Amino acid sequence: MSDTVTNQRPDSLLKDALVRIQQEVDACFDATLPVPEDPRARLYEAMRYSAIGGGKRLRPLLVTAVASLFGVDRSVAVRVGTALESIHVYSLIHDDMPCMDNDSLRHGKPTVHLAYDDATAVLAGDALQALAFEILSDPDLVGDPFVRIELVRTLAHASGINGMVGGQMMDIAAETASFDLATVTRLQQLKTGALLAAAVEMGAILGHVPPEGRTHLRGYARNIGLAFQIVDDLLDAEGDEEAAGKALRKDAEAGKETFVSLLGIDRARSQARVLVDQAIEFLNSYGEEAELLRAVARYIVERDR
Amino acid sequence: MSDTVTNQRPDSLLKDALVRIQQEVDACFDATLPVPEDPRARLYEAMRYSAIGGGKRLRPLLVTAVASLFGVDRSVAVRVGTALESIHVYSLIHDDMPCMDNDSLRHGKPTVHLAYDDATAVLAGDALQALAFEILSDPDLVGDPFVRIELVRTLAHASGINGMVGGQMMDIAAETASFDLATVTRLQQLKTGALLAAAVEMGAILGHVPPEGRTHLRGYARNIGLAFQIVDDLLDAEGDEEAAGKALRKDAEAGKETFVSLLGIDRARSQARVLVDQAIEFLNSYGEEAELLRAVARYIVERDR
Repeated sequence: MSDTVTNQRPDSLLKDALVRIQQEVDACFDATLPVPEDPRARLYEAMRYSAIGGGKRLRPLLVTAVASLFGVDRSVAVRVGTALESIHVYSLIHDDMPCMDNDSLRHGKPTVHLAYDDATAVLAGDALQALAFEILSDPDLVGDPFVRIELVRTLAHASGINGMVGGQMMDIAAETASFDLATVTRLQQLKTGALLAAAVEMGAILGHVPPEGRTHLRGYARNIGLAFQIVDDLLDAEGDEEAAGKALRKDAEAGKETFVSLLGIDRARSQARVLVDQAIEFLNSYGEEAELLRAVARYIVERDR
Repeated sequence: MSDTVTNQRPDSLLKDALVRIQQEVDACFDATLPVPEDPRARLYEAMRYSAIGGGKRLRPLLVTAVASLFGVDRSVAVRVGTALESIHVYSLIHDDMPCMDNDSLRHGKPTVHLAYDDATAVLAGDALQALAFEILSDPDLVGDPFVRIELVRTLAHASGINGMVGGQMMDIAAETASFDLATVTRLQQLKTGALLAAAVEMGAILGHVPPEGRTHLRGYARNIGLAFQIVDDLLDAEGDEEAAGKALRKDAEAGKETFVSLLGIDRARSQARVLVDQAIEFLNSYGEEAELLRAVARYIVERDR
């Protein structure tokens, strides 16, 4: 990523919050996935390998940051964030497989199908998807069944055919079709935007915010989701593979249209900045308590991986 | 399957019920998966290809048969059965893939990864898993959020690492390990038993039966689940590939221990009969209204595919 985008370091509020949520999500996965002494051990190990100790944990960070606006118990928000992260991790495992993106590196270590095998990768992904809904439906999470079922509903919709998986399918189609900007935008709203939006939504659900009170938070989520993907495309085009911990420039090689190929680097970068500024404006009704959410928005364009 | 087991035809009560539930589940999938005019069309088509017009629909039949004991609205029970079937179908798609069982035939037609491609098969399975939880969390299903969240909890647990997927992992391990009868039983209780038990449990949840009132139904479910798998092993050892609509004798070729390899054909068959008799005894507190559940139990040992 060029200097113009990386000259600001994430502030310490965000840095501390990232370190904290990474530890919390790791601890939650660790407690949720104790390796049994039976022939399922290898599956548990593959799930732990992929779920523990990697990733920015941006989605759990969003859940906890929004939930904290409404005084939600932090350990509950962390578990909900871990459920969401479980979906994200499963999608990466399946996406990395030979029949999909065929990637060999993820978070700087061999992908699950290489560290284990393809069959274990399929099953680890499948089990992590189920785990997300096990965590959210657990009566120990929150007593109110309405809160739990709304969390399930939000995550199932955001991760399924009308969300993440639908976006992944469009992404495959992008290799052979030539998408315009509207279609690429739709693709990315589904592929990454839906789950980021779900993170914000689930924080609000935990806070008992009714749907009509979520308008501004949804605007924030929509904008950072799109900005996130534009920056992903910029990092893919300009980034360093070692810093990223994964293979880059695969989209161009596959002949896929991206925000960068359609807008060019300069317009893509300014578009990401505009989106982030608008995202921050959506938080105007909140005071200092939303400072972390503002920092997350700025981080989206400033990150270098 | 030998004559001694197939000399009784399923009675017309069961026959009619199977035809009816097959039509209802097909209609429910059809209504739930309208193909959109966008690049996700291929994914929808693959989901429809695998979900519509195949399979015995034994799990939805169990949901509706149990729900009917308690006067549950049939269309609600059918949707819950379709959610459960969505999980079953996704597991078959992933199980058939080259890196798993590498099967080319399912319900007499080419498996999804052959009719489409491996990537589409991965995503169709992933999307069908999410669909199950979308159906169950839909507020239009039942107003009471407690019923919906209990349905989600039951299905997530039964399909995840402590249920179906855990059993599939043990099944893979069975190729290189030499399991004893206790381990094979545990494997099958997870791999197929958990989802069959969930079908019965979900029917009872719809009927507002409290957990302490489900003991007999759980006994019924546990017994038919095990009998089902023993008969599957018998059909695999003795069945006709064309009638089965799938490849057979793969367990023996893979060197896996099964109920048949461990017990022999005669003891396996008598064990299945004992289990079914016990299953029917668990229904003694019910009258004529449970006749369909008794017929299902008998069908488990009498079926030829």
